[in-house]
Amino acid sequence: MIVDELYEKVRQRSPLCVGLDLRTGYIPTEFQNFSIEDGLFETAKMIVDATIQNAACYKVQIACYEALGLEGLRAYAKILKYLRDNDEIVIADIKRGDIASTAEEYAKGHFSGDFEADMATLNPYMGVDAISPYFPYFKDKNKGAFVLVKTSNPSSDDFEEIEDKNGKPLYISVLEAIKNWGEDFLGNSGYSAIGAVVGVNHLKQIIHIREVADGRVFLLVPGFGAQGAKAEDIAQLIGQEQGGVVNVSRGIIAAHVGKEGSAKDIIKAKADAMAKELTDAIGKL
Amino acid sequence: MIVDELYEKVRQRSPLCVGLDLRTGYIPTEFQNFSIEDGLFETAKMIVDATIQNAACYKVQIACYEALGLEGLRAYAKILKYLRDNDEIVIADIKRGDIASTAEEYAKGHFSGDFEADMATLNPYMGVDAISPYFPYFKDKNKGAFVLVKTSNPSSDDFEEIEDKNGKPLYISVLEAIKNWGEDFLGNSGYSAIGAVVGVNHLKQIIHIREVADGRVFLLVPGFGAQGAKAEDIAQLIGQEQGGVVNVSRGIIAAHVGKEGSAKDIIKAKADAMAKELTDAIGKL
Repeated sequence: MIVDELYEKVRQRSPLCVGLDLRTGYIPTEFQNFSIEDGLFETAKMIVDATIQNAACYKVQIACYEALGLEGLRAYAKILKYLRDNDEIVIADIKRGDIASTAEEYAKGHFSGDFEADMATLNPYMGVDAISPYFPYFKDKNKGAFVLVKTSNPSSDDFEEIEDKNGKPLYISVLEAIKNWGEDFLGNSGYSAIGAVVGVNHLKQIIHIREVADGRVFLLVPGFGAQGAKAEDIAQLIGQEQGGVVNVSRGIIAAHVGKEGSAKDIIKAKADAMAKELTDAIGKL
Repeated sequence: MIVDELYEKVRQRSPLCVGLDLRTGYIPTEFQNFSIEDGLFETAKMIVDATIQNAACYKVQIACYEALGLEGLRAYAKILKYLRDNDEIVIADIKRGDIASTAEEYAKGHFSGDFEADMATLNPYMGVDAISPYFPYFKDKNKGAFVLVKTSNPSSDDFEEIEDKNGKPLYISVLEAIKNWGEDFLGNSGYSAIGAVVGVNHLKQIIHIREVADGRVFLLVPGFGAQGAKAEDIAQLIGQEQGGVVNVSRGIIAAHVGKEGSAKDIIKAKADAMAKELTDAIGKL
């Protein structure tokens, strides 16, 4: 199970997930004469090289590449291939969600072919139909998913926190469903192939989420760094057993922008510091 | 406002939206020697030619093209360009939803460049942050959106129908939000640039949705044909004023599969019949 491989990588390296949400403005001087496709690809390779000692996995935000049309998606395909060829775990941050016959197409598109990744983020709004077409890939092709539960953006309370008649917020209903769906895909680590995207907000929510996830649902935690989540709160969320990975995008991959000196050295120093900050916070639990 | 143009097209032609969710299995014999890219593009052109008298607009399901990797997306880009060059209204069925900085990238990707469409479908799970980055394009570039409200798939009740403390289902909370967001983007038709995706389920839901939408929220109704929604129910939903478009994908674009004779003639006959069925049902209201 891919979740077991990810669990091991966290133990070998750190819970850091590096988000390759590359913008053209992040391409360092040495690659600025390249085509956009090659500039993005070379920048990604440099970042991987600088962070590989700390990164349990890499999350690639497809939107940044879709924004650049076909050329952007050629770079996206190359970056995914490079990571997989080097045995790094790749999470395609696609947040797709659609009816079953359409979700089958997305599953094919992101778990095989040009855009093949190891795991993908998914949107649960439409219910289990939007998620189950990925299930056959979990066992047959060693794939996994992270489903949106509680996101880290300011308006995540618009709908995710609406409480039902019994006071249960929507995101907890989604998390419970994820836990049930995952029963058929449990790895040796105890975690299932269906994880959850959980932003850090209030301590009360962290405790509730940990209770429901219950050592079964592996977490993908966004928001560390640029979005303002603190290492102490994240440590509470993933716990001493480190049942999750913590994504940092801009905080690492744009650390060199506007600064003198080697982009790779600056990025490496930042990844080292953020991984240490997380590991220290977990050590203090 | 694009919604006014769409409103006019419905009056000139019919409320039919033809869904170009092309699979390679739908490519007719005459294009089967072509590359996948050209086969899909020629098939799309043939379908547009066969349906243009009836189709108010075309919805292109990007998942079918993403499934085929870079080649599929080259076909997707060509199909969108062909439709826009011929002044047909194109809805990119992308159902994207992400934090604001990412949604900005998606908005750029689907409202400009290789994948430029006139309107896009969006997922509201993460709240207004996932939708508002598209707003600047509504006024400046004559774009619009359809946000998922109540979908047509079997598991749409998993989360969309969860009722809050006052008995209000989630999808109605989303629809109310859409109506509010749309206040700043009202067209001459009375409808706003932010429409809603609404599947037809039970009569009680149809009445509730019409009450809330209140002549402001233009509807995109999936499920007619292959997914089983009836023309009579759809007529109730969009009403005599025809405040919506009705998508048919497989029911039209795969009508020729496994049949003898001209694919174009078969598809044209099917589009004629389905447009008439809708128009007749609306006439009987």
